[in-house]
Amino acid sequence: LHSKLPDVGVSIFTQMTLLAQETGAINLAQGFPDYDPPQELLEALARHARTPGHHQYAPMPGLPRLRAAISAQVARLQADAPAPDPATEITITAGATEALYAVLAAVVRPGDEVLVFEPAYDLYGPAIRLQGGIPRYVRLPAPHFRPDWDAVRRVLSPRTRLVMVNTPHNPSGAVFTAEDWHELARLLDGTDALVLSDEVYEHLVFDDAPRISARQHPALRERSFVLSSFGKTYHATGWKAGYCIAPPALTTEVRRVHQFVTFAVSTPTQHALADALEADITDAHARGLATFYQEKRDHFRTLLAGAGWDLLPVPGGYFQLARYDAFSPAKDVAFAEFLAREKGVAVVPVSAFYHDGLDEGLIRFCFAKEAATLEAAAARLR
Amino acid sequence: LHSKLPDVGVSIFTQMTLLAQETGAINLAQGFPDYDPPQELLEALARHARTPGHHQYAPMPGLPRLRAAISAQVARLQADAPAPDPATEITITAGATEALYAVLAAVVRPGDEVLVFEPAYDLYGPAIRLQGGIPRYVRLPAPHFRPDWDAVRRVLSPRTRLVMVNTPHNPSGAVFTAEDWHELARLLDGTDALVLSDEVYEHLVFDDAPRISARQHPALRERSFVLSSFGKTYHATGWKAGYCIAPPALTTEVRRVHQFVTFAVSTPTQHALADALEADITDAHARGLATFYQEKRDHFRTLLAGAGWDLLPVPGGYFQLARYDAFSPAKDVAFAEFLAREKGVAVVPVSAFYHDGLDEGLIRFCFAKEAATLEAAAARLR
Ligand SMILES: CSCCC(=O)C(=O)O
Ligand SMILES: CSCCC(=O)C(=O)O
Repeated sequence: LHSKLPDVGVSIFTQMTLLAQETGAINLAQGFPDYDPPQELLEALARHARTPGHHQYAPMPGLPRLRAAISAQVARLQADAPAPDPATEITITAGATEALYAVLAAVVRPGDEVLVFEPAYDLYGPAIRLQGGIPRYVRLPAPHFRPDWDAVRRVLSPRTRLVMVNTPHNPSGAVFTAEDWHELARLLDGTDALVLSDEVYEHLVFDDAPRISARQHPALRERSFVLSSFGKTYHATGWKAGYCIAPPALTTEVRRVHQFVTFAVSTPTQHALADALEADITDAHARGLATFYQEKRDHFRTLLAGAGWDLLPVPGGYFQLARYDAFSPAKDVAFAEFLAREKGVAVVPVSAFYHDGLDEGLIRFCFAKEAATLEAAAARLR
Repeated sequence: LHSKLPDVGVSIFTQMTLLAQETGAINLAQGFPDYDPPQELLEALARHARTPGHHQYAPMPGLPRLRAAISAQVARLQADAPAPDPATEITITAGATEALYAVLAAVVRPGDEVLVFEPAYDLYGPAIRLQGGIPRYVRLPAPHFRPDWDAVRRVLSPRTRLVMVNTPHNPSGAVFTAEDWHELARLLDGTDALVLSDEVYEHLVFDDAPRISARQHPALRERSFVLSSFGKTYHATGWKAGYCIAPPALTTEVRRVHQFVTFAVSTPTQHALADALEADITDAHARGLATFYQEKRDHFRTLLAGAGWDLLPVPGGYFQLARYDAFSPAKDVAFAEFLAREKGVAVVPVSAFYHDGLDEGLIRFCFAKEAATLEAAAARLR
């Protein structure tokens, strides 16, 4: 059997989580919280687990009440854009992962080019290649990881089928500004390239910076698949529920693939999430996330201050990047292994986010952790 | 946007379920029970919904305890085959649907041929074509829907990458015999074609016929992906949890795709299923399913006897096929619509299971329904 993805191993996130388990290291590697979803959401899932009639296939595009609740919340939080139509523009997926995959499978054909900003989440490249597509990488330069629009223009071609955006960005936390969206729209004007905007960290934008979705730029909205995830928003990465918002013609194509990839998402899970969204009509949970995570960011940075780590700015998301080369002879994966085995903290080397393994001497810490976890980790890291 | 699946509409199952909702017809169309999973399983999900620490990403291949419990049950029920290794041979997927998709995406390349027996579940063809593969169809003739191995031999070619088997078969209920597996093994001997064996109805084999998995034939085991689903076994189609069993080298390829398609499956759901499997060390639930569904089959057939429907034999699964042309001028989808609108029973026309819409004058009833539902439907159908 000749592998279609011969160079793909077990992902770095899985590897580092296993190393953390093996060594007993504090796991700041894989991106997930060490706290639970809100208690009301857990109660809602328990309630629907016991509800007769909530255990068979959900409708393929998602439960109507969950799609309606998402539409209402998006309309409240993105007041300058029209509400997405639950019937024709919202599809519930098995996490944002399935949404990413379904969009790529729906639109990328053999030979199509897909523009990817690097560093990039590890699934982008292989999932493009599985469709026969060709990833074309544009590097985001440290420490701010802001797009260079001239570089983007040079990489765009008549064969560009899709541009993948991730804001706030994993691993850097960089956030697209109105100007960025404007530049992207200008470059795509007159082409038929589409946009996949991975906005799973949408609520985690710090320092009162504006949070702007691709949907809020009218010219982009009509060519964009906008993805988000309940995993990040509700501290429930293990529930595997996300969604894709796109105009009707694009949604039709996503659903054509979704119905063959997973068909539908867990019915009791969707009911529980719908309860949570319907109850939170002030969006207090989503609005509170920026403050919640900004405090964690600041706490972690304060704990590490003066210990020799060069901490990069973190405008959003839930990761802190750090440059370590000032004091370490070991590099890259070897340094990450040293940290886990000798210092008891598991991290992800940022080289894992480059298709060619580029090592710029950066590691990534996940700060979506209890204060006590961050304090214990920082004590070891100091 | 040129669709990659221009001829794929909303699936017949979804269409007929919508028609049932619109018309108030009794829904014997889409294959799902109208009763709930066992109470202990619902309690288990409620318990894990409330358990702290059960809400973040499961390991990519599935919870170790769930994989161990599956391995132990498979070893008990298929005593003549070695137990599958939980670490290297079992992968938990978002339903058997994701497993089917991941196997196809992992092994089918553009130009590869995939042998498909028709009638076939509606995702097989489009999911093959999404990989650039070419479905090669072999027809199973009514009323017994047994493979003609000479016809299979004629369709096999050096470009055959995969043979898709479904036993018990949807929609006919036909069950592979030891002789069938033997013929398949003989035809594949010396080739490097692989086998995908969709065994989601594995426990639903009637009249004391042997239930034989592809895993129980040694020469096939080494080239087979064997799929099953908790949806059918636990009356929980809406939980979207299934699995793939395959030798280590094949499992590596499935996981390479699975990690990019969904990454992992709901953590609380996996814990609940593991509880159920661990508690049921006599496999009473799985072993009881054949009797449970055989009674439904017999009840439904008795109710319809003498009413002019030509009922085909049902050796397994949860569908009854019937020939209706003796008394209906309307055909195919028009007949199904007539039944739903005028008689109040939603069914699936078997033409939906043929890539070319072949109409042999058959419709499919799902008898995975409460006795009262079957009685009400039969009263209308008589
Ligand atoms: C699905 S495992 C990866 C989780 C994540 O988003 C990350 O660590 O970057
Ligand atoms: C995923 S909807 C189809 C359910 C099913 O297995 C069938 O009706 O054949």
